[in-house]
Amino acid sequence: MGELSIERDEVFRIRTERVPGLLAKALAAAGEHGANIGEIETVHIGADHNIREVAIIAPDDESLRLIADAMARIEGVELLPGQVDKVWEQHKDGKIRIVPNATVRTLQDIREVYTPGVARVVSALVDDPSLAQDLTWKGNTIAVVTNGSRVLGLGDVGPLASLPVMEGKALFYAEMVDVNAVPLVVEATDPDELVGVIQRIADGFGGIHLEDIATPGVYEVERRLEADLPIPVFHDDQHGTAVVVAAAIISATRRTGQDIESLTFGQVGLGAAGSAIAGLASGLGFRRVLAFDPFQGGVDRLHEVADPAAEIDASTSEAQFDRVIAEADVLVLTTGRAGLLEPSRVKEGQIIMALTNPLPEITPNQAREAGAAVAADGSIVNNVLSFPGIFRGALDARATSVTLKMKRAAAFALAEATPEGELLPEPLDASVHHAVAAAVASAWTDSA
Amino acid sequence: MGELSIERDEVFRIRTERVPGLLAKALAAAGEHGANIGEIETVHIGADHNIREVAIIAPDDESLRLIADAMARIEGVELLPGQVDKVWEQHKDGKIRIVPNATVRTLQDIREVYTPGVARVVSALVDDPSLAQDLTWKGNTIAVVTNGSRVLGLGDVGPLASLPVMEGKALFYAEMVDVNAVPLVVEATDPDELVGVIQRIADGFGGIHLEDIATPGVYEVERRLEADLPIPVFHDDQHGTAVVVAAAIISATRRTGQDIESLTFGQVGLGAAGSAIAGLASGLGFRRVLAFDPFQGGVDRLHEVADPAAEIDASTSEAQFDRVIAEADVLVLTTGRAGLLEPSRVKEGQIIMALTNPLPEITPNQAREAGAAVAADGSIVNNVLSFPGIFRGALDARATSVTLKMKRAAAFALAEATPEGELLPEPLDASVHHAVAAAVASAWTDSA
Repeated sequence: MGELSIERDEVFRIRTERVPGLLAKALAAAGEHGANIGEIETVHIGADHNIREVAIIAPDDESLRLIADAMARIEGVELLPGQVDKVWEQHKDGKIRIVPNATVRTLQDIREVYTPGVARVVSALVDDPSLAQDLTWKGNTIAVVTNGSRVLGLGDVGPLASLPVMEGKALFYAEMVDVNAVPLVVEATDPDELVGVIQRIADGFGGIHLEDIATPGVYEVERRLEADLPIPVFHDDQHGTAVVVAAAIISATRRTGQDIESLTFGQVGLGAAGSAIAGLASGLGFRRVLAFDPFQGGVDRLHEVADPAAEIDASTSEAQFDRVIAEADVLVLTTGRAGLLEPSRVKEGQIIMALTNPLPEITPNQAREAGAAVAADGSIVNNVLSFPGIFRGALDARATSVTLKMKRAAAFALAEATPEGELLPEPLDASVHHAVAAAVASAWTDSA
Repeated sequence: MGELSIERDEVFRIRTERVPGLLAKALAAAGEHGANIGEIETVHIGADHNIREVAIIAPDDESLRLIADAMARIEGVELLPGQVDKVWEQHKDGKIRIVPNATVRTLQDIREVYTPGVARVVSALVDDPSLAQDLTWKGNTIAVVTNGSRVLGLGDVGPLASLPVMEGKALFYAEMVDVNAVPLVVEATDPDELVGVIQRIADGFGGIHLEDIATPGVYEVERRLEADLPIPVFHDDQHGTAVVVAAAIISATRRTGQDIESLTFGQVGLGAAGSAIAGLASGLGFRRVLAFDPFQGGVDRLHEVADPAAEIDASTSEAQFDRVIAEADVLVLTTGRAGLLEPSRVKEGQIIMALTNPLPEITPNQAREAGAAVAADGSIVNNVLSFPGIFRGALDARATSVTLKMKRAAAFALAEATPEGELLPEPLDASVHHAVAAAVASAWTDSA
């Protein structure tokens, strides 16, 4: 794990003498070591000094130390003890918890929520299992499932270490859309084993959110669960990402004033996210979809997930690579190769999303300088925009799967909610998630 | 399911003219059909009539209809529409829900609870998995697992229909001791399959509460999980029940002023609950433990769970049955056979717990009339008294199992918390659960 550098968010308690310009000096010194300044809160104003809590984002641990040293060396500036690791604080005791949703204040309450009352509910479910939607938490509850085999940029960390990521998803579900999401980390490297466990626990849930499971195994897991289970199954790394990217593409074409029907979509890289993005794009109405991946598996995957009615031209040839870049009006790159796209190959007026993290195939600045009409990198893609509304909508509609139409509806709803001049809306705006949910639910209901 | 009659709790809206004695008349009529009157709330006082909401417990559906008819026939009494099925109301949308335990108000919060912050937590867990106790919900979270094979008195209802019972347990955990308990209903009839699923999902939990799983399969499930998992595994139907019965026994001996060390304990019936009760009793300090079961499996099971240091005399012979009844100072019956114990066989001064539901081996009245010093039936046994405190204590102590010492400590703590003249404390008294938790945690810590 050591090679990967992870940005550090830390809150410093900084004491400055009341000399004008001293805080700015400290922040400038921090900036020299790559500090990005976050929220600043004044916690004490004294006769001769102030104390502030300053949130600082450092590129990595080492930079954080250099930043602290640089600030402390300035005359009149002191770093107080009590420096807070907000990340640790937020994770303390877990990011979600379970609370009562029924009343237990009297002995009569116990008779209602437990024996003998509960026996009547059990009997009712034996007679009519569909009552579980209303009389248990199932109708509002999903499992967020992983085997920890491909977690963030960290790779195969196993089930336990992946738990904080699943809790993060569950936190957003609770916060944004009141869906109960249960983190389930499963010890199962083999897709067959993972499928077996999920099938056996699925009865108690209204949906399955798959997360951070390595390809190609996850494709089999998803395919088999979709075929077997009467509830929606959704692999966020593929489809959550695709919905957000599709929304950004729709916003970008609105900005350029172009009709999607007149445009050629191009995708370079058909991994989990890439094939899902191109697959969803094929359902947005593009005139043509061109795609390239060095491996036939990627090309095959695209055909599996694409709109069957769409015209798809995908292959592994080098000529195809050149063609996608040259002919795409909207070009999405998910190759894992930083700097792959030379600025000289950018076409005037192209919309370019170079999504490889942390360093993209071409930076937005380079792309724009080379003539791109709109350019973005992976930093715009935040799945928090998509998965909460998608599952809220699927549960509300009692959908039995998440269809291409529902994902398409989610993408258009996100684009609709995007402020002028932006590519995507704010993830903390609750109305965004409810708009997505409503669109997704309608998409299911209208075609059911 | 039809054969089993389940008590019905219902709230009637009753309008009575303001004539003294009219309510009493209505309640008397209800009583003639077996109604047990619960809470009465006056919701309207008018010039010429009152409206009250009256909670009525009926022996079954048919009686409920007769009760309603009898009340409605009384002159001046009217049953208003809006009769409420409180059980359905309490179960609506499930009895528990998941809420945030971290803050998501700013984009900086998202950086802390999700990427990039969460990646640091994941990396930390890769290096030191024990940090999951503090930095995830694991340290405060258990799974309540069943396959639905032996639910309440209803038998094998399968996983989905058993969900309301698991939610009930989870509700008590949330309400009484702030433990996150996740209901997991598993499609697995074979113990081997059930063990496999639980092993694979166990990493994300701090404990496993087994519930309503049929014998003898549950013994194998419990044994294998206890051997394999580094977290506590607890089968409530056995050990939760045993702790409550043990507490009632301790209270009873205090009432009679006897020393446990001078008494003979007798158990008739060594099923799941019976063997666990006798096993725990063997750790309470009785001079002797006598037990009978018609099947050798029950006798073997008792030896598995008993205190290895105790003197146990158990067998399947008819002579043993007679001997247990004749010699026991404390006699516990869990035979499933109503009226099994003839009053003439009760020994003067015996403490008798006849626990078969709904009709006991001997009623408490019969037993007392026949000379028993203390007598009780199954209605006193409410596991809500034991499991919340036991798991709260086990999690607090970071215990890796629930030992006989911990169960013993729980039983003594319950007896300690019992009001004068009662056998057990009130389940809604939060201090009871915290006393149990503290005793259980100490029992682990002291012997670790």
